[in-house]
Amino acid sequence: MEITGLARRAASLSPTAAAPPRSGMIGFDSGHAFPGILPDLRRAAALALGEYRHETLQYSERAGLPEMREWIAAHMCRDGSPVTVDEIAVVNGAKHGIELLCRLLLDEGDTIVVTAPTYFTSIPIFRSFGARFIEVEQDEEGIDVEAIKAALDSVRRDGSRPPKFIYDIPDFHNPTGITTSRRRREALVALAARHSIPVIEDSPYREVRFEGEVLPTLRSLASGGSVISVGTFAKLVAPGLRIGWIAAPVDLIRRILLLKADGGSSPLVQRILLEFFRADGLPAHIETVRATYRDHRDAMVTSLRRHLPTVEFTIPSGGYYVWLRLPEGVDGEIIADRAASEGVSVIAGHRFFAADATYPRNRPSPRNNVRVAYSHASPTEIEEGVKRLARAFVDR
Amino acid sequence: MEITGLARRAASLSPTAAAPPRSGMIGFDSGHAFPGILPDLRRAAALALGEYRHETLQYSERAGLPEMREWIAAHMCRDGSPVTVDEIAVVNGAKHGIELLCRLLLDEGDTIVVTAPTYFTSIPIFRSFGARFIEVEQDEEGIDVEAIKAALDSVRRDGSRPPKFIYDIPDFHNPTGITTSRRRREALVALAARHSIPVIEDSPYREVRFEGEVLPTLRSLASGGSVISVGTFAKLVAPGLRIGWIAAPVDLIRRILLLKADGGSSPLVQRILLEFFRADGLPAHIETVRATYRDHRDAMVTSLRRHLPTVEFTIPSGGYYVWLRLPEGVDGEIIADRAASEGVSVIAGHRFFAADATYPRNRPSPRNNVRVAYSHASPTEIEEGVKRLARAFVDR
Repeated sequence: MEITGLARRAASLSPTAAAPPRSGMIGFDSGHAFPGILPDLRRAAALALGEYRHETLQYSERAGLPEMREWIAAHMCRDGSPVTVDEIAVVNGAKHGIELLCRLLLDEGDTIVVTAPTYFTSIPIFRSFGARFIEVEQDEEGIDVEAIKAALDSVRRDGSRPPKFIYDIPDFHNPTGITTSRRRREALVALAARHSIPVIEDSPYREVRFEGEVLPTLRSLASGGSVISVGTFAKLVAPGLRIGWIAAPVDLIRRILLLKADGGSSPLVQRILLEFFRADGLPAHIETVRATYRDHRDAMVTSLRRHLPTVEFTIPSGGYYVWLRLPEGVDGEIIADRAASEGVSVIAGHRFFAADATYPRNRPSPRNNVRVAYSHASPTEIEEGVKRLARAFVDR
Repeated sequence: MEITGLARRAASLSPTAAAPPRSGMIGFDSGHAFPGILPDLRRAAALALGEYRHETLQYSERAGLPEMREWIAAHMCRDGSPVTVDEIAVVNGAKHGIELLCRLLLDEGDTIVVTAPTYFTSIPIFRSFGARFIEVEQDEEGIDVEAIKAALDSVRRDGSRPPKFIYDIPDFHNPTGITTSRRRREALVALAARHSIPVIEDSPYREVRFEGEVLPTLRSLASGGSVISVGTFAKLVAPGLRIGWIAAPVDLIRRILLLKADGGSSPLVQRILLEFFRADGLPAHIETVRATYRDHRDAMVTSLRRHLPTVEFTIPSGGYYVWLRLPEGVDGEIIADRAASEGVSVIAGHRFFAADATYPRNRPSPRNNVRVAYSHASPTEIEEGVKRLARAFVDR
């Protein structure tokens, strides 16, 4: 059977699906939730499959259940992002949202702007559409807007086509944990608007905040729909739900729905969520999520300082991850391999770089990083896991 | 915001999502299940969200839950289609399966072979990947294999690229209700193998058989993986589940999983299905489905003969649909509009033709057809619906 064109790329993509934690292994590698906080959705499911059976077991609207779109719009409005119901499309998780936006916006060979490093599961999605990457670094304030500006100026001088969008995770970035500052957000949105380049704001961890001020979403700072939001219930409720959303101008949503080849994202799971919300289950769950992951973060920071004093990192004030800067010359891939032998799984940092050798502006990816997730392991496992990780360094 | 290339197509696609039945309207238009036979999945859901919570609320494997892949493989083997677990990918419904196969196999401008008419929801999926169509007709024995042969010979003479795949629904075809005969199946598979062109066998209605012999699947007749199967639980259990599968050679499945941008198809719904199967819920449900839709089919045939004696149709021995051939010169679109005014929704037949004017071999689509579904309406509603449909003819 002949496999041609873009599809060939699939052969060169790296698998990035979250593997289930292996037994005996402490999992610092995945965005799995801490098992102890998975909510009890049985009552919501009994309602969804009882009185709502005629809704949940039939085909449903591609855009999502009307009540779910209303809930999402209200949720975003409460968060300062003005959005109407018509600007919401319910999708099968944030990754599906990213995929649909790529289908809509990208042609083979198009460039996009991403941070270096960026969300590693998004990289093969972008690559599968033939995207080339303009990578920009982050500092403590977030994405380097001056670097984007320089890249856009350079593109203009070249006469080459401008990037199709800027993809960023402004809140508790994956993998770096960095939160973009307010002035940097303003600068990003202003630059993007000036160049008429949409920003895709992917913010799964926004509610997983441990401390500090809530900063405005990029969308709330933008006018005229130049920011497209991708949302998910994975971190808000549970990863396995596979329900997320896109918020975008109505004409884009209309096109996205035409490309969304399905009979509606699971109406059963949407209804379970709505019944969970109606029973007021969400506020308490979010409090549990925050308190639990704050403890996990604290345990991770304490253990890292105790057992890996030479490793540098920025303490995240939310999210799931700590981004470790290993000493120069230490290869994160080798550390990850040794850590696995010691019984703790981490992901080598270079895997989070989209670096595309065909694009001359990109520098080689640094090798001396490792991402550790504190979401899935308990504080006791975190202490033990960091001890194991430290042994991977000693072996060196 | 600039929308370019293939994505522009989205603007010209027709919406084909199943709309929920409107109140007061009798729905002959959709593949919705009859509400009375939607199964009770509450006990399965309580287990899935109780003891299986750590599986169902976490990310899961893209390929599907191992038990679900085993169940599907065993189900296909029982049906005479030899397949291994590694040859199964669980997806978000059959439409998602078709989309993934298009992403893998199609480049813009590629041709594919489809029946005229064909499954109308698949048409915008194919079009969104830039496919051009070679349409072949059906007779009482199914897809016209001689016409495919002629098209392939013509392509060879032209020196143009052969079609990427042949898409067919051999059991209780949507919309025509035709079941491909055994010898026609053998001829199709042999021709496809000779030309090394894969066949995509989409067979959602296979279990919804009212009478007659079970014919071998195309896959069971093919050797060497030249038939790719797309399956779904939509008609086997309920449409809203949004779980289906692809069965294909291992190397294709591996590539498909790299293109499948998700954190696993809903593990919750997969587990609900597995618990429903474990409690032996499926055989009784399939019997209910068959008995119910046989009654509906009989009601439809009786009512059509009574109220629309000039309309011709073939009685389907399974599936959801009757394909009406209206008298020459009667436009199905006008009938569908008038029927809607009379309070019954049907779909005009020309919408099931992929006809692409850019491909010179295709003839203009006939206008004198209407598809009526007997799945959603009760026998009483069917009688009333056909009366209303008959009034749409009288008005003419």
